[in-house]
Amino acid sequence: MAETPLIHHELPVADQADTARRFMLSAATEHSSVTPAAELADWLARRTVAGRARISRIPFAEATGWAFDVRSGNLAHASGRFFSVEGISVRTDRQWISSWIQPIIVQAEIGILGILVKEFDGVLHCLMQTKMEPGNVNTVQLSPTVQATRSNYLGVHRGKHVDYLDYFTGARGGRVLVDVLQSEQGAWFLHKRNRNMVVETEEDVPVGDDYRWLTFGQIKQLLQRDNVVNMDSRTVISCVPAVGFEAPDGDGTFAGSLLQSLAGNTSALHSGSDILSWLTEIRATRDLVQRRIPLNDTVQGGWYRDDVQIAHESGRYFKVVAVSVEASSREVSGWRQPLVEPNNPGLTAFLTKRVNGVLHVLMQARVDAGSLNGAELAPTVHCQPDNYAHYPERYRPSYLDYVLTVDPRRIRYDVMQSEEGGRFLHAQNRNVVIDVGDDIPVEAPYGYRWMTLNQLGVLLMHSNYLNVEARSLLACMRTLW
Amino acid sequence: MAETPLIHHELPVADQADTARRFMLSAATEHSSVTPAAELADWLARRTVAGRARISRIPFAEATGWAFDVRSGNLAHASGRFFSVEGISVRTDRQWISSWIQPIIVQAEIGILGILVKEFDGVLHCLMQTKMEPGNVNTVQLSPTVQATRSNYLGVHRGKHVDYLDYFTGARGGRVLVDVLQSEQGAWFLHKRNRNMVVETEEDVPVGDDYRWLTFGQIKQLLQRDNVVNMDSRTVISCVPAVGFEAPDGDGTFAGSLLQSLAGNTSALHSGSDILSWLTEIRATRDLVQRRIPLNDTVQGGWYRDDVQIAHESGRYFKVVAVSVEASSREVSGWRQPLVEPNNPGLTAFLTKRVNGVLHVLMQARVDAGSLNGAELAPTVHCQPDNYAHYPERYRPSYLDYVLTVDPRRIRYDVMQSEEGGRFLHAQNRNVVIDVGDDIPVEAPYGYRWMTLNQLGVLLMHSNYLNVEARSLLACMRTLW
Repeated sequence: MAETPLIHHELPVADQADTARRFMLSAATEHSSVTPAAELADWLARRTVAGRARISRIPFAEATGWAFDVRSGNLAHASGRFFSVEGISVRTDRQWISSWIQPIIVQAEIGILGILVKEFDGVLHCLMQTKMEPGNVNTVQLSPTVQATRSNYLGVHRGKHVDYLDYFTGARGGRVLVDVLQSEQGAWFLHKRNRNMVVETEEDVPVGDDYRWLTFGQIKQLLQRDNVVNMDSRTVISCVPAVGFEAPDGDGTFAGSLLQSLAGNTSALHSGSDILSWLTEIRATRDLVQRRIPLNDTVQGGWYRDDVQIAHESGRYFKVVAVSVEASSREVSGWRQPLVEPNNPGLTAFLTKRVNGVLHVLMQARVDAGSLNGAELAPTVHCQPDNYAHYPERYRPSYLDYVLTVDPRRIRYDVMQSEEGGRFLHAQNRNVVIDVGDDIPVEAPYGYRWMTLNQLGVLLMHSNYLNVEARSLLACMRTLW
Repeated sequence: MAETPLIHHELPVADQADTARRFMLSAATEHSSVTPAAELADWLARRTVAGRARISRIPFAEATGWAFDVRSGNLAHASGRFFSVEGISVRTDRQWISSWIQPIIVQAEIGILGILVKEFDGVLHCLMQTKMEPGNVNTVQLSPTVQATRSNYLGVHRGKHVDYLDYFTGARGGRVLVDVLQSEQGAWFLHKRNRNMVVETEEDVPVGDDYRWLTFGQIKQLLQRDNVVNMDSRTVISCVPAVGFEAPDGDGTFAGSLLQSLAGNTSALHSGSDILSWLTEIRATRDLVQRRIPLNDTVQGGWYRDDVQIAHESGRYFKVVAVSVEASSREVSGWRQPLVEPNNPGLTAFLTKRVNGVLHVLMQARVDAGSLNGAELAPTVHCQPDNYAHYPERYRPSYLDYVLTVDPRRIRYDVMQSEEGGRFLHAQNRNVVIDVGDDIPVEAPYGYRWMTLNQLGVLLMHSNYLNVEARSLLACMRTLW
């Protein structure tokens, strides 16, 4: 067969339980000797100013390098690189809309989202980056050490060298703590996945001004603020194992039951096998038939294109637009590109409930237009509420009205977080965690199931079980103790 | 959201370790009081005669109900049911052929392959069926209790009731022992998966003449014979958990090291995390770009169609043909359908090696034209050897020449097994297990990795890790102690 390996890292891989223990220690460390709180605040403020960019909406005709294909109408870059916007026709078993047509981003490559970690004074620190992305709310957000496309890391095309990439391709030594493919936004991406990695080094690492070493505890604090920690950081953090971690005895508090939930699953409502069987049945019986179509043909679904946007005649859902970026701190000094812009903010909410002293999260099995593997586990509520304003009550997402009207004292987390700013323009979700108490019974409808954080952690060792919105919320939940 | 569940089984799910122990006991039981050996032999002989059918090749024009689409040339049934034969264009990173075009079977539905089990005298018995499929070598083979398409089990179309189906859809009580989606032949099927299930009942079950209760030990014996146990049975059997099973101390024999390998992985060469990281890297870096094309366009890849076949101009690979079936023991008394016919038999081989007293299997990460999730784990050697006869040595599959010339005393298993006879005409693989001793070193090329049977068992709890040919060989390996 004699295949040529493209990357051949063969780095040693750490024990999951050991990694879990070390990350719990880092999460409990809110003060770092490497990057003290004052310096962190100063650095973030400074980099936010330095990274500022002028983002202007432009007509598609001015998006240099990008063009609509004459026959299909697909929007693509002349080089064949980056991504394209095409059409998809979807048929599934949702009762309220069982088939529809929409534009979708096609980007077959698997990129790397990688956080480099190193121990200082016995505590793991993450090398985090301030990165400008044109679609970000606030423009600059805290990002993983590396966000690289496949073309980047295989060196296929010219383009600036990606700092620290060698730690993730095995060109340098190191130890793998996390390494798993995970899905991205299924509503807007076709089958898109990235490789989520955490690699530990013991080497001396030169740290550029865009980078700082932060403990998990410091990142936890930043996750309490709107639109500071980017989606790529959140998804990598969510994949850090909790398996094998030993928690103190429960103390009856929300935080105590959360630790119990992370640590073990002996008191879980459903066994792991039971959860897998339930998801298998849903994947087997809930149809998802995807057919790629030319972008031109999305007109049959009510989508139209003018000089500055591709949009839906109802005014709902999302638009495809083009922007011009004038920046200073990026590989190239400026560029133009299309972005997907949701028409209104999203809401992702976890309903959580203490059962036998262990916090359980109500997960939803959800199919999206671009799902690779059928249903994935999504937040209890995951939607753009405004899209449902005109629906009769029985077609509104389950639990949506509960979340919108819940007693504020039940809300444990309520922060706006952005989706990937390299593809989405000002795409924000309100991330909410609710401690439902006795408001919501333990009996759940068929497409929903209560799970512990430990059970979710086990599933996160594999691809395509938790969708990106669920992973984002999980990263946020880890701040709540 | 108010989705309507299509099936709502919510059957209880058994503990994996308990299931493993009970199946090991059944595997050790070669004599059944329910179906004694003499009756089993008599029944198989009788059913083979009764199930005989006349299978004749016919021109496509005589395949009633099937037609080539005027524009695309796709071969489909007028009802839109069953499956279609379309085209696919594939680009990947194999060195010897990096892109090609071929016909492929498209069947988006997920079917059920289910074995019903029940305890008799404290030993689990499987309700196995003698089933005629037109493409089977020997026509009649031992099949799972149920092989049902989605249309069957949702009752979407008319058609005879599928016996025992209610046990798998939750319409009757029972307990789920195995429930997982697994892939089918990636070389010929696009993204095809079936739901592999084992369900236990305690009810009295009426047993038709096509069915008998067999122990795992009895099925083991039948797996030693050519073309008796069909592919659907083998894949379900391979998914029965070995996790948590406790083996006796190793005794230095092949069988003893196999039991150690099934039982635990403390002495595994690579940790589970290491194996997942290795596979993640291969999936991320080994490209697989699939583009569906009209069957007519496969002419660009050297495929032609005449009245009786779609074939490749080289005479290699496979053909699509049509057959007429005249049978008595099936839902309908006769029918006509297309089948895929490989031009020559396949070879699937596991190289196995005892390391620290524990048997390890050399798995290959392999991408096929129709893979859903990038590379899956395949047998060490998995090919149609005749397709490579004209290749220079460096492009021949790794280890192929070793398997073809190995000292026969190293061969532990060597049996011909058929692929699914409802889609493939006389598709056979030589299934081989070799105890390599010191012939092959423990160092393996990049795309290969030694794993224990226990590690493979853990991966089999999830979808799309082991391909169907690897699962078939695993089922066969379970006979070797």
